[in-house]
Amino acid sequence: MGREVLARQPFSRHVGAELVALEPGRCELAVALTTELKQQDGFAHGGIVSYLADNALTFAGGTAMRVPVVTSEYKINYVRPAIGERLVARAHAAHVSRSQAVCQCEVYAIGAEGEKLCAIAQGTVARKDGAAAAAPQEGSA
Amino acid sequence: MGREVLARQPFSRHVGAELVALEPGRCELAVALTTELKQQDGFAHGGIVSYLADNALTFAGGTAMRVPVVTSEYKINYVRPAIGERLVARAHAAHVSRSQAVCQCEVYAIGAEGEKLCAIAQGTVARKDGAAAAAPQEGSA
Amino acid sequence: MGREVLARQPFSRHVGAELVALEPGRCELAVALTTELKQQDGFAHGGIVSYLADNALTFAGGTAMRVPVVTSEYKINYVRPAIGERLVARAHAAHVSRSQAVCQCEVYAIGAEGEKLCAIAQGTVARKDGAAAAAPQEGSA
Amino acid sequence: MGREVLARQPFSRHVGAELVALEPGRCELAVALTTELKQQDGFAHGGIVSYLADNALTFAGGTAMRVPVVTSEYKINYVRPAIGERLVARAHAAHVSRSQAVCQCEVYAIGAEGEKLCAIAQGTVARKDGAAAAAPQEGSA
Repeated sequence: MGREVLARQPFSRHVGAELVALEPGRCELAVALTTELKQQDGFAHGGIVSYLADNALTFAGGTAMRVPVVTSEYKINYVRPAIGERLVARAHAAHVSRSQAVCQCEVYAIGAEGEKLCAIAQGTVARKDGAAAAAPQEGSA
Repeated sequence: MGREVLARQPFSRHVGAELVALEPGRCELAVALTTELKQQDGFAHGGIVSYLADNALTFAGGTAMRVPVVTSEYKINYVRPAIGERLVARAHAAHVSRSQAVCQCEVYAIGAEGEKLCAIAQGTVARKDGAAAAAPQEGSA
Repeated sequence: MGREVLARQPFSRHVGAELVALEPGRCELAVALTTELKQQDGFAHGGIVSYLADNALTFAGGTAMRVPVVTSEYKINYVRPAIGERLVARAHAAHVSRSQAVCQCEVYAIGAEGEKLCAIAQGTVARKDGAAAAAPQEGSA
Repeated sequence: MGREVLARQPFSRHVGAELVALEPGRCELAVALTTELKQQDGFAHGGIVSYLADNALTFAGGTAMRVPVVTSEYKINYVRPAIGERLVARAHAAHVSRSQAVCQCEVYAIGAEGEKLCAIAQGTVARKDGAAAAAPQEGSA
């Protein structure tokens, strides 16, 4: 079902995203690191790394909550230039409530030297449909 | 009314927070930079800078939405050691919907040389009560 | 010069990015919202919104610092589905030091009804070359 | 040595912070949840949760890098009201380079019902002293 959602996203097709694994609260999303996904130095462009993290967060949160969701916000730290033949994002839901899931994601570049961690992200996935939604009770003062 | 809320927060009293200004979607919150709010180098501790930003975000979002709210998440960049006699956080609501406000905040240190920007924050303020809450329709794919 | 950098980024060409305006500490970057940049609901995919924010932050920080830079981290809040004919990201440097610039960015969708704010981002742009770099003196305890 | 640093931070003494565990790249920092750390609803104030996360991130990054450091930025998601007798923040370094460490932190409330996850944070810890610092080579386009 995740593959269908991905297949219906023109942007995901445009960048060649591939759903490697999907289970409740976990998602693995990958792209082949083709030339068109790179920036001027030959590394993956930050935009494609962000895309992978954002989308993997959404899938991890959505499968955890089992309702239609959106990523409402996230932050990402790039920790190493993404060099290799393939990028893979692995996301999981760290906390799930009725209204949202807070998810974390790591993005790896896979090349001749194996996997290298390239980026780390954390964000909020929120339920989309109002009807049955509980209000967020989370938060600080 | 904001002053009452602040006065009912023991932690806000513990750090000596003072509500300087409050209007719909805007808040200015300050502390005198006493010794107990500092870290080992004589600067304000990051924790008090974060407290000010967090609380100012909540007030800005709450007055914009006019319902009970919580800060559900935020990020902060420290840009300069906070040195001076006083810290002031100025927050405003950048986007307001029925379910949440995205707010921004700048924290300044005020001393002999005037005001210096010390930190910049951005976060989500969400409505607290479920009953009348619209579900979040915001977000990406 | 910004246009040359952009033209040398295959991913930026792949998504059709266009540098609308660039001056020290400010950048405006846009894309035509073609089908391939959308997700399953007909809105812009979060990935393209993130790409625009990320790249505009980099340009705003780079022109402010006048050295080669990278975006080392950022956070983004999506506040409204991005619907329209065009997306434009406007970024500015909020604080600049020798080693980094903290930048903010707003992304708007432009359609028949004018401009609508879709996302708000904040991030760190860091200098790339080690040689002349000052160490970051910013930060909290 | 961590306890000495903490003892030299007046703000950490003011909130009663206690270093529970510290090893290279890992830190556990706690407070007793006394009345003065709470907000108007009897929960821990977001400001003290943020303080714990911020400081635990700094210690995790500093012990990983083995140089003087500052937390230059972080984001935090509050996922549950912090109710209980004690708050504990557990941070670890997720990626370490010469110039910075990207760290993650979870904050738990400990009460009669055991430990409950209250907040999740991610941030950058940067080296403080310029002299020997490598320039950040991390980042995206």
